[in-house]
Amino acid sequence: MKEKCPKDSYVMMSELVLPNDTNTLGNLMGGKLMHWMDIAAAISAQKHCNCPVVTASVDNVSFKNAIKLGNVVTLEAKVVRAFSTSMEIYVKVWGEDVAAQYKYLSNEAYLTFVALDPNSRPRKVPHVTPETEEEQKMYDAALRRRQVRLVLGGRMKPEEATELRSLFVQDK
Amino acid sequence: MKEKCPKDSYVMMSELVLPNDTNTLGNLMGGKLMHWMDIAAAISAQKHCNCPVVTASVDNVSFKNAIKLGNVVTLEAKVVRAFSTSMEIYVKVWGEDVAAQYKYLSNEAYLTFVALDPNSRPRKVPHVTPETEEEQKMYDAALRRRQVRLVLGGRMKPEEATELRSLFVQDK
Amino acid sequence: MKEKCPKDSYVMMSELVLPNDTNTLGNLMGGKLMHWMDIAAAISAQKHCNCPVVTASVDNVSFKNAIKLGNVVTLEAKVVRAFSTSMEIYVKVWGEDVAAQYKYLSNEAYLTFVALDPNSRPRKVPHVTPETEEEQKMYDAALRRRQVRLVLGGRMKPEEATELRSLFVQDK
Amino acid sequence: MKEKCPKDSYVMMSELVLPNDTNTLGNLMGGKLMHWMDIAAAISAQKHCNCPVVTASVDNVSFKNAIKLGNVVTLEAKVVRAFSTSMEIYVKVWGEDVAAQYKYLSNEAYLTFVALDPNSRPRKVPHVTPETEEEQKMYDAALRRRQVRLVLGGRMKPEEATELRSLFVQDK
Amino acid sequence: MKEKCPKDSYVMMSELVLPNDTNTLGNLMGGKLMHWMDIAAAISAQKHCNCPVVTASVDNVSFKNAIKLGNVVTLEAKVVRAFSTSMEIYVKVWGEDVAAQYKYLSNEAYLTFVALDPNSRPRKVPHVTPETEEEQKMYDAALRRRQVRLVLGGRMKPEEATELRSLFVQDK
Amino acid sequence: MKEKCPKDSYVMMSELVLPNDTNTLGNLMGGKLMHWMDIAAAISAQKHCNCPVVTASVDNVSFKNAIKLGNVVTLEAKVVRAFSTSMEIYVKVWGEDVAAQYKYLSNEAYLTFVALDPNSRPRKVPHVTPETEEEQKMYDAALRRRQVRLVLGGRMKPEEATELRSLFVQDK
Repeated sequence: MKEKCPKDSYVMMSELVLPNDTNTLGNLMGGKLMHWMDIAAAISAQKHCNCPVVTASVDNVSFKNAIKLGNVVTLEAKVVRAFSTSMEIYVKVWGEDVAAQYKYLSNEAYLTFVALDPNSRPRKVPHVTPETEEEQKMYDAALRRRQVRLVLGGRMKPEEATELRSLFVQDK
Repeated sequence: MKEKCPKDSYVMMSELVLPNDTNTLGNLMGGKLMHWMDIAAAISAQKHCNCPVVTASVDNVSFKNAIKLGNVVTLEAKVVRAFSTSMEIYVKVWGEDVAAQYKYLSNEAYLTFVALDPNSRPRKVPHVTPETEEEQKMYDAALRRRQVRLVLGGRMKPEEATELRSLFVQDK
Repeated sequence: MKEKCPKDSYVMMSELVLPNDTNTLGNLMGGKLMHWMDIAAAISAQKHCNCPVVTASVDNVSFKNAIKLGNVVTLEAKVVRAFSTSMEIYVKVWGEDVAAQYKYLSNEAYLTFVALDPNSRPRKVPHVTPETEEEQKMYDAALRRRQVRLVLGGRMKPEEATELRSLFVQDK
Repeated sequence: MKEKCPKDSYVMMSELVLPNDTNTLGNLMGGKLMHWMDIAAAISAQKHCNCPVVTASVDNVSFKNAIKLGNVVTLEAKVVRAFSTSMEIYVKVWGEDVAAQYKYLSNEAYLTFVALDPNSRPRKVPHVTPETEEEQKMYDAALRRRQVRLVLGGRMKPEEATELRSLFVQDK
Repeated sequence: MKEKCPKDSYVMMSELVLPNDTNTLGNLMGGKLMHWMDIAAAISAQKHCNCPVVTASVDNVSFKNAIKLGNVVTLEAKVVRAFSTSMEIYVKVWGEDVAAQYKYLSNEAYLTFVALDPNSRPRKVPHVTPETEEEQKMYDAALRRRQVRLVLGGRMKPEEATELRSLFVQDK
Repeated sequence: MKEKCPKDSYVMMSELVLPNDTNTLGNLMGGKLMHWMDIAAAISAQKHCNCPVVTASVDNVSFKNAIKLGNVVTLEAKVVRAFSTSMEIYVKVWGEDVAAQYKYLSNEAYLTFVALDPNSRPRKVPHVTPETEEEQKMYDAALRRRQVRLVLGGRMKPEEATELRSLFVQDK
């Protein structure tokens, strides 16, 4: 299986915030934004593995700036690292008040998808070769995020999470 | 401000999985489910603080079991703990194949909402008084989840996250 | 076939009134509410008979109080009585202005669903055993509502509608 | 206020049955159809009174023939009779399998709307002048349907419903 | 194959402009209107050929008058001329402020659809027999519109477009 | 007013084809695609003029290849030329079967938008400076497309359309 670069799975998606996407304050609802993030990440994951995918998990998402009705939402997604049958996708979300020429970061998140074979069983995916320095950093940090997921999901004991543990403990 | 119990903010929501909610495998898309989770949690948060709210963050979400087209999704939400102007809401999601009388846990998550005054500035919310043993446990663990959020969001240094640190380090 | 209680088919559904659900006065459109009532009732009917169902009829519905944009709609549904292959479901709808802590009855209705076998032919459904006094009353009155439906649908002559006739005539 | 004929408020609406409008059997959901009926009737009522309207009630609706995915739904609506501030609208619904050149009656219903002034208070509407024999029959029967609504809504005692009572009793 | 008249494929469709259909100025978005025009034309084309159809092209569309939120959109469609396996459909769109009793032309357009056999290959469609003078004019002008399409689509050389050429050149 | 390049208004939009976007053959409906084209073009136009815009017209659109359910649609839009208060936007649409690694051109189109001031009156927009050879060609050909629009819309006589006339006539 041929290795791929993050840019091979790059996806850009622009959406207009319509009335039904907003709460009574006229701000984009967090859940609607997560819906778009999931779609952008799913397309990106499919571009990496060229087969159907399912969302396995979504990491912590913080909403920093409210996105207003009528603004444009731009999502960028690319695969950061692959683990056997799963892929970690980085999604970055911008809001933009086009008339005011004001563009602002809304939030970022990491989503994990699993690739499926025709019988809906997990199947192997190509490795990722980071190209830029930023992609290399994301690639390296992916191990730590994976341990956070496993510990938070109860599938790894904190003491086994060596990557994570190093954050808290100065091992001598 | 009068304290409230988790059951005061209890919300139950049932939805039918329709074709447009599913991917090409006929499974509910993760993003659509997060959309519903956000709405259920927002209604629950509003019941607790009786004012407009915005999504501040969503904790790690893992999708354990795929929910199929035509199945019923049941979401239960209640406020677990309040922190000055924010509330942590627990959401539990069940899938159900009603014809086959088969009900299964899909996933659980914690979402954080901020209460807003008429000028869209954060405002104080009532405290939460847990009533059952399970609610007490969730209430206690809320501090640790809050530190995970702050550390992952870069707003707290790992060494200050005392609740979290204790998971990894046996302080002597 | 085992008898079932109304609480076995109990469904609760909460929805947020979004801009597209309202008319130019900012009130929930009657037709959208009936759409939600149909879905809540269909889920309840399926819980009772554990097979696919179709809407056979909807009784008179009166809209007492307008539900405003941004309010929460809560629907409760349960099967009241079964007739061979059909079920009568009672749906109660509440509106709620959560910020103002004001909850109000919007309307109530009875819907009838037919259970279908794999060839889309009507199939037998379990009997209903009312448990509370209110459920017993609804169970008893179901016969009269059924006659109203049959007379209005032209499938029963008024003089045969003995339950209904007694409302108008003092038979000596 | 100038009288109007039913044809002045005539509305025709055609819709395509899309996947999200159907249940797992591939049939149009009853609630979606009622949603369209409400919109067609609302447009018709507005044409009669030239002001905003709200749904007051929907009479018994029976679903005779299932409408299949991909079929065309045609709704016809017109105001049948006016009562001071309210209007009764007749809606007739056809399903059509265009490829098979097969058109079938799905159902009929009567909906009642109230006209509103700029302060959302009921306001007077023009009288209706039936033109055809069929319109005259519908006009005459409107009184009886109105009594059914009032009796079923608990706002009229059965013994006062003289139009209705005559169906059941041979007064000598 | 029996010839058909334009009135055999006549379709009328009324829609209410809802919040999500409008831009930030409260006007119906052009793209949403084109979506409705495509559906009305597709139903009309299916009525003419009684088989599945696909959109082949849409001629130039100019939007003359903005349609406001809450207004009623009425679309009328009929088949104007048939060419072997394709049909040209004329769609006329009206906006209406029902309360103000103000009806205005929004735009007109010609769409072309191709009829498909069960293997999704083009199949022959019935000829069109115009009945009114206006239908005859549209029928005659259809050849010129067809040449515009072919020239603009690069499938015909301008010098071969005899119908079109006559507009620009006085051939002696 | 500062001139702008086409790349300043470049917009990329990716969408997943969901069941409700398709006809009974499982192909994306032409009208839905035009809806997306209109949104992509509107965002692009807003980026150029930094104010609200309305669709003025859509040039001939031909649908070359059907886009299947589950495929990814990618739209690219940029402003090609500006005329006083209006802008011509070029939109290119790709379909992609990601699993099969098969990407195909669906169609291209030119849309015209008008920029509006706060009173909804047309306002001046910046000029466009083409940068690449392809952009220069599109810029030059924009005049001819504009004449096609004016002639087809009945606002210019064919004999005045000098750009267009030269296609048909060899003036000596």
